[in-house]
Amino acid sequence: MDADRNYIKSFVRTVPDWPEKGVMFRDITPIFQNAKALRGTMDAFAQRYISQNVDIIAGIDARGFLLGVTIAYELNCGFIPIRKKGKLPYKTYSEEYTLEYGSAAIEVHTDACPKGSRVVLFDDLIATGGTMVAAAKLIQRMGGVIHEAAAIIDLPDLGGSRKILDMGVPVHALLSFEGH
Amino acid sequence: MDADRNYIKSFVRTVPDWPEKGVMFRDITPIFQNAKALRGTMDAFAQRYISQNVDIIAGIDARGFLLGVTIAYELNCGFIPIRKKGKLPYKTYSEEYTLEYGSAAIEVHTDACPKGSRVVLFDDLIATGGTMVAAAKLIQRMGGVIHEAAAIIDLPDLGGSRKILDMGVPVHALLSFEGH
Repeated sequence: MDADRNYIKSFVRTVPDWPEKGVMFRDITPIFQNAKALRGTMDAFAQRYISQNVDIIAGIDARGFLLGVTIAYELNCGFIPIRKKGKLPYKTYSEEYTLEYGSAAIEVHTDACPKGSRVVLFDDLIATGGTMVAAAKLIQRMGGVIHEAAAIIDLPDLGGSRKILDMGVPVHALLSFEGH
Repeated sequence: MDADRNYIKSFVRTVPDWPEKGVMFRDITPIFQNAKALRGTMDAFAQRYISQNVDIIAGIDARGFLLGVTIAYELNCGFIPIRKKGKLPYKTYSEEYTLEYGSAAIEVHTDACPKGSRVVLFDDLIATGGTMVAAAKLIQRMGGVIHEAAAIIDLPDLGGSRKILDMGVPVHALLSFEGH
């Protein structure tokens, strides 16, 4: 398993000072550009969940879509998009979360998740955890059970994975980077 | 093939007067929520391209991501995200397109597509075609060749697929709806 992770990690591109000075941005697009790295990443997650009791994959707008749909396909599950405010056309639940300055909201269709469904929640990266926590609350509001919150990258120094664990939700990331 | 298409079409939810009065919005999220409809949709595209000469799948932010990655996975291709302005961290090419009021821009990483690559371009729906035409120009600017522009839904009355064909790019949609 560890060799595979180093292989995938070698495709993450670090862009310094983006989107603002002092941030080391971890760019996952090179993973997706390479057919083998793409396959290795998707299969690593699919293998983790294939024998577990998972009904639905949810992905957070927009990089969580890059991961979640293929894993749903592999596991023969349905996929739920969790979108930024104003993007979903049908009846929605909405959840606000705070950003460094101000706040934002994400939404889900109210009929997206049957009560009692076991859901794995996907985003590309866990930083401060605000989006993932809000997404987990949306799933729980529909009566869904969060099986795990999953991402390619965790930035543990920013405290997001700790915050998710504190709400009783297990966390799984393929890769971990120090700093932010 | 036609039976499959009707099956998939039965999952498209029409939301009247969204995002504005008079528009019949075709909501594809129920396709993704259903494991069989999701699989049928992805496999229909993958079967179309499996024996063709395709190197890369590109998907347009954000609903094009829902389709493109899984099809890249199935075809053992790489995937390129074409994003709304300001979302990609590395060097980008940018292309403007006009909206009903004003304009918007989409971007791609400059190193995303080796010269001569054959690319299938994915979005969920073709309406006026502005985004798809801009995306095709971005791929061509990198020296890529558009093998086909593909979507789940075409709205031929809005003229987008005609506009894409007029630039010499073949178009393929699984479903077609009258009106807009």
